[in-house]
Amino acid sequence: MSGVIVTNPPKADPKDVAALAGFGVATVSEAMGRTGLLGPEIRPVQQGVRVAGTAVTVLSWPGDNLMIHAAVEQCGEGDILVVTTTSPSTDGMFGELFATALHRRGVRGVVTAAGIRDTQELRDMGFAGWARAVSAQGTVKATGGSVNVPVAIDGQVIRPGDVILADDDGVVVVPRERAHETALRSKAREAKEAATRAAFLDGQLGLDRYGLRDTLKGLDVEYKTYQEYQEQQEQQEQQGYAGERP
Amino acid sequence: MSGVIVTNPPKADPKDVAALAGFGVATVSEAMGRTGLLGPEIRPVQQGVRVAGTAVTVLSWPGDNLMIHAAVEQCGEGDILVVTTTSPSTDGMFGELFATALHRRGVRGVVTAAGIRDTQELRDMGFAGWARAVSAQGTVKATGGSVNVPVAIDGQVIRPGDVILADDDGVVVVPRERAHETALRSKAREAKEAATRAAFLDGQLGLDRYGLRDTLKGLDVEYKTYQEYQEQQEQQEQQGYAGERP
Amino acid sequence: MSGVIVTNPPKADPKDVAALAGFGVATVSEAMGRTGLLGPEIRPVQQGVRVAGTAVTVLSWPGDNLMIHAAVEQCGEGDILVVTTTSPSTDGMFGELFATALHRRGVRGVVTAAGIRDTQELRDMGFAGWARAVSAQGTVKATGGSVNVPVAIDGQVIRPGDVILADDDGVVVVPRERAHETALRSKAREAKEAATRAAFLDGQLGLDRYGLRDTLKGLDVEYKTYQEYQEQQEQQEQQGYAGERP
Amino acid sequence: MSGVIVTNPPKADPKDVAALAGFGVATVSEAMGRTGLLGPEIRPVQQGVRVAGTAVTVLSWPGDNLMIHAAVEQCGEGDILVVTTTSPSTDGMFGELFATALHRRGVRGVVTAAGIRDTQELRDMGFAGWARAVSAQGTVKATGGSVNVPVAIDGQVIRPGDVILADDDGVVVVPRERAHETALRSKAREAKEAATRAAFLDGQLGLDRYGLRDTLKGLDVEYKTYQEYQEQQEQQEQQGYAGERP
Amino acid sequence: MSGVIVTNPPKADPKDVAALAGFGVATVSEAMGRTGLLGPEIRPVQQGVRVAGTAVTVLSWPGDNLMIHAAVEQCGEGDILVVTTTSPSTDGMFGELFATALHRRGVRGVVTAAGIRDTQELRDMGFAGWARAVSAQGTVKATGGSVNVPVAIDGQVIRPGDVILADDDGVVVVPRERAHETALRSKAREAKEAATRAAFLDGQLGLDRYGLRDTLKGLDVEYKTYQEYQEQQEQQEQQGYAGERP
Amino acid sequence: MSGVIVTNPPKADPKDVAALAGFGVATVSEAMGRTGLLGPEIRPVQQGVRVAGTAVTVLSWPGDNLMIHAAVEQCGEGDILVVTTTSPSTDGMFGELFATALHRRGVRGVVTAAGIRDTQELRDMGFAGWARAVSAQGTVKATGGSVNVPVAIDGQVIRPGDVILADDDGVVVVPRERAHETALRSKAREAKEAATRAAFLDGQLGLDRYGLRDTLKGLDVEYKTYQEYQEQQEQQEQQGYAGERP
Repeated sequence: MSGVIVTNPPKADPKDVAALAGFGVATVSEAMGRTGLLGPEIRPVQQGVRVAGTAVTVLSWPGDNLMIHAAVEQCGEGDILVVTTTSPSTDGMFGELFATALHRRGVRGVVTAAGIRDTQELRDMGFAGWARAVSAQGTVKATGGSVNVPVAIDGQVIRPGDVILADDDGVVVVPRERAHETALRSKAREAKEAATRAAFLDGQLGLDRYGLRDTLKGLDVEYKTYQEYQEQQEQQEQQGYAGERP
Repeated sequence: MSGVIVTNPPKADPKDVAALAGFGVATVSEAMGRTGLLGPEIRPVQQGVRVAGTAVTVLSWPGDNLMIHAAVEQCGEGDILVVTTTSPSTDGMFGELFATALHRRGVRGVVTAAGIRDTQELRDMGFAGWARAVSAQGTVKATGGSVNVPVAIDGQVIRPGDVILADDDGVVVVPRERAHETALRSKAREAKEAATRAAFLDGQLGLDRYGLRDTLKGLDVEYKTYQEYQEQQEQQEQQGYAGERP
Repeated sequence: MSGVIVTNPPKADPKDVAALAGFGVATVSEAMGRTGLLGPEIRPVQQGVRVAGTAVTVLSWPGDNLMIHAAVEQCGEGDILVVTTTSPSTDGMFGELFATALHRRGVRGVVTAAGIRDTQELRDMGFAGWARAVSAQGTVKATGGSVNVPVAIDGQVIRPGDVILADDDGVVVVPRERAHETALRSKAREAKEAATRAAFLDGQLGLDRYGLRDTLKGLDVEYKTYQEYQEQQEQQEQQGYAGERP
Repeated sequence: MSGVIVTNPPKADPKDVAALAGFGVATVSEAMGRTGLLGPEIRPVQQGVRVAGTAVTVLSWPGDNLMIHAAVEQCGEGDILVVTTTSPSTDGMFGELFATALHRRGVRGVVTAAGIRDTQELRDMGFAGWARAVSAQGTVKATGGSVNVPVAIDGQVIRPGDVILADDDGVVVVPRERAHETALRSKAREAKEAATRAAFLDGQLGLDRYGLRDTLKGLDVEYKTYQEYQEQQEQQEQQGYAGERP
Repeated sequence: MSGVIVTNPPKADPKDVAALAGFGVATVSEAMGRTGLLGPEIRPVQQGVRVAGTAVTVLSWPGDNLMIHAAVEQCGEGDILVVTTTSPSTDGMFGELFATALHRRGVRGVVTAAGIRDTQELRDMGFAGWARAVSAQGTVKATGGSVNVPVAIDGQVIRPGDVILADDDGVVVVPRERAHETALRSKAREAKEAATRAAFLDGQLGLDRYGLRDTLKGLDVEYKTYQEYQEQQEQQEQQGYAGERP
Repeated sequence: MSGVIVTNPPKADPKDVAALAGFGVATVSEAMGRTGLLGPEIRPVQQGVRVAGTAVTVLSWPGDNLMIHAAVEQCGEGDILVVTTTSPSTDGMFGELFATALHRRGVRGVVTAAGIRDTQELRDMGFAGWARAVSAQGTVKATGGSVNVPVAIDGQVIRPGDVILADDDGVVVVPRERAHETALRSKAREAKEAATRAAFLDGQLGLDRYGLRDTLKGLDVEYKTYQEYQEQQEQQEQQGYAGERP
């Protein structure tokens, strides 16, 4: 596979990235209409860490980290490295040496559809990672790929310069042109959640707050006491055996 | 899907629940003849926490948390919320707002066949969770389901009022009518394990303690030195090539 | 299934085991030409622990821990218990009682292709474990198997006496006859990595350090500015619709 | 694990079973409010076969087929054998010899949460099977279990005497007391589907037939031409970079 | 989730689609530099069928087929329906009624990241399908989504109007603007493969045809007779135990 | 990774291979004490085909088929190619061109822990395949590996020259030195199965034939009528709530 290394892609505004870093992954996804999430298979290798940054994307051959070397040069302050492979792989393509080089360049973390290794060392140096697998399996440097082209991981398209936000709940991508609007909406969403939290602490039910009692009625969901429910079940059973048949 | 919300189901006696809370999940499962365990796919989202409580069950449509809102009203002191979906789902149906509302009502945790989100917030507030997935994916409130009907998760039936016990090893369900007996048997089991532990610390072998040397003999399991084993392998290889053939 | 319990197999030299314990799993695997790793499905049940020891191997029937009892007697100072089953299983075959017995005998940990239970207790007593699953499911003692025969876990053959090294990144097996050589190579590898780390901290790029710019050129990987790349994409789209057709 | 073999459980009326055999699995599940389905992991080992019968249930230890032997005696004309294990297993617990014995007794097929073997022989003799796995792995006869107790497979409870209906789409369970009513509803559902099929063949759209245009409007789903959509995307991108910031 | 239904997107030229239909999925993927493939989890529900068409894309809520109804109206002669969900789902969102409506409109098949049902009926009517799962689970019509927006399935982005080619080996997407070029390259690739096939039938080895003997030499891959290899292994073992140590 | 290509390994006697070809995979595995099976993830890409041959083994880098080219030269009449990768891969490393070359050399099939492509073409030419995945993903020829070294697939070690037997139930490996003995035992096993089959057809139960009634009794498995069972359940429930507590 030949490929291309794209230099100087447009990036989301650092102010918007900073604003988005103030919200959780769930909040930002909600603010985008419940979209943007990488699926639940991409998990953090540490706990209690949240980072936001702009994506530098890598498309690699499985078992090969050549293009990550090429990507390092394209990475700078405030970036997050995003790595995928052309076919499913769990190899530990990314480890402590890459983290060292990226950390020095101001990169904030790595998100990969493949594997990470040296996880203890990464936690020790405070370099955050999200991955499909933890694996010590090393890789070669023999096959081409691309840097800073759009990649697709677990149902989401990530373009260079898009905002990556990641925490214990997973990873969300915010298209760079929607970063500002999404930060504003996330703030509104958070305010709304704060009001709901206060109401819940005060004893209000979601059923009442969101008007869901009517929804349940409209869907023919009935309330029954346990006794009514049991009697109905028993009746049904008797009818099932004794009932007239055509 | 229409459904039913069953109110005031019978519950296991709180004294039995308290008694069961004193044992680990493995011990209680052993005490029930090695039954009652939800499979290994339901994992804790925290470490070092054990809770026991009475089940309030929810059967939801995938991607929809309407019925969890209905269930909150049915939850009270000492309950554990148990959520499943009509088809496989990893969505983060349960998060910090639900935990806030349930925590206030004295609910002790959540067990779900789907996903949990806001895991860091849940750990911070001390609300325990067990789930198949961690996912920030939000849900809608559009489709009916049921509350407090029997549900099946990973090979186990859970009825409202049954005892749920969960720790780092997973989740076990104790039918409400067997709670008392199971607590007694767990105590006996624990005593037996303590004696075994002391014997093992004293150097006794399981082979002797359980009379397994005869079992091995009866199963034709032989002891061989490494040298005997190697010679047999080599002999077999030679015969394999030189032996007479019919 | 009948079977065999092999006594007194040859073991790797304790000095080599001690030397290997000084390196990470990833380093040792690299030193063996990127081989020897059990796949990414075998995960630690604790964090931040590294152990090395000599393998005592067990081949068990699924749902049955009889042969682990037989293996305990074969275990001694510096060993690591390695357990697999004749067909896929997630049962919690190994728990706190076995750990107690093995701990007393100087065994350093357990690696299993099946499940572990009592994980909190194991962490508390400092007995390390790596497993495919955490499960409270108990097992019987009814069917035979073997101890100290070669076993295959996740693509690797493990023979009794081979060196097992395990940490947060996973598990690697070093054939006993290659332990000495591998420790030497690991040391060389580590020195090489230290030099690379220093160079990376100094700002050198992997592209230059490994001569990868020529590799990229040889693979026809091109550099393009984002503007060039976008223009090419648009051009391609126009040609796609307007181009001459045969 | 001790256990129980329950004899002579009540069974669904053969007339209702015969009636249900006339419908597909999807139709019957729809007729029960989209419930009753075993999940998509239980797959047929043949193609183009549909069977209906009454469940004889088996709960076995993994790697052990003792209880299937006990179940054979409980099986008769019109039954379907339903097998699950106390923990996940893929072993080939069921093969041609069991099929021979059951075929002779008028049993119509097997549904198992574990594995099947001798699949070619089963197809040759016309004995239908649905399983999680195909595996040649044989099993022992050493550990107890139960026959004709309720079992839970993939989210569904199956009791002895319940109706099992299985085809290329999977397996559905109809509680025995709901068999008659479900057959009637399935017939109504089929009639409704026939009318829809005719309307669709006549060119009517689901959007119109089900009044979904209003649903879409109520959900704020908008129609846009491709040109409008592209212009909006581009505008958004420009605003994203040039817009005023607070 | 609100959404958008995009009408009249540009489509690949039917002549190019027809040309691509003449090649296998593997050939076309090779012709695009080994890219474009949906991963191996999307499998055909029939055998021996190959279709090519232009994508009409659907992004649906899990457990909900509302947007497929909206998409039917956007489908026409030569299209292939491509369905994905906002989070992982195996539900049988697509069945015989949809196939009937689409078949009448000249649609050639369906590719879905979720599930298909009525598989026997689809095979009978000659409507081809590729899916992650076969499941009879029905769905509701309650939540919005989008039609003819770009979607990401298993690592690939599919835009409306792109070419979908599917056969027994899986599914490949050809961007609409690259359809013509890819058809030409596929033809060249096929010619090359025909020459290779002839050479192989004539006894030539890939080692010689592709000049791989030098590659092997350059990678230090050595040839050894079995005897040499065995002797080396034994020597290594002896040295491992007897060798001098520092 | 450097590697080695081993030439002229010893092979199982063709007469034994021919004898083993007369039995099913399940029978041969039983004859070896229920061992030798590759796990259930390696599935056939055709139906109704059984082959036996001697293994030529390949250890490849993921995404790379260089070593298969090297292996072709080592393959001859009566061999079966066995391919694995150094880390998990689903790539379509093996397709119609390799099958053409091997078919000409008298090779009988391929077994791979990775993927196969051109499955329709393979079925058409009668070249049998077993694989973990079907995938059109092509591979490069850039990284070294080994031919005719022992490999481990799904829990089994396969050495060059060992017998591979594969059918619809999966794949079994017979160590070359045990081929003769295993063929004899398989014959005995088949005779025993024939007798059992006849007995079963004659109405005998496995319970009686294998003396399992005593086994059940020894395991405390009780027989109860449905009525007794129900009464016990109800009694237990009442006691559960009314019983004395300490």
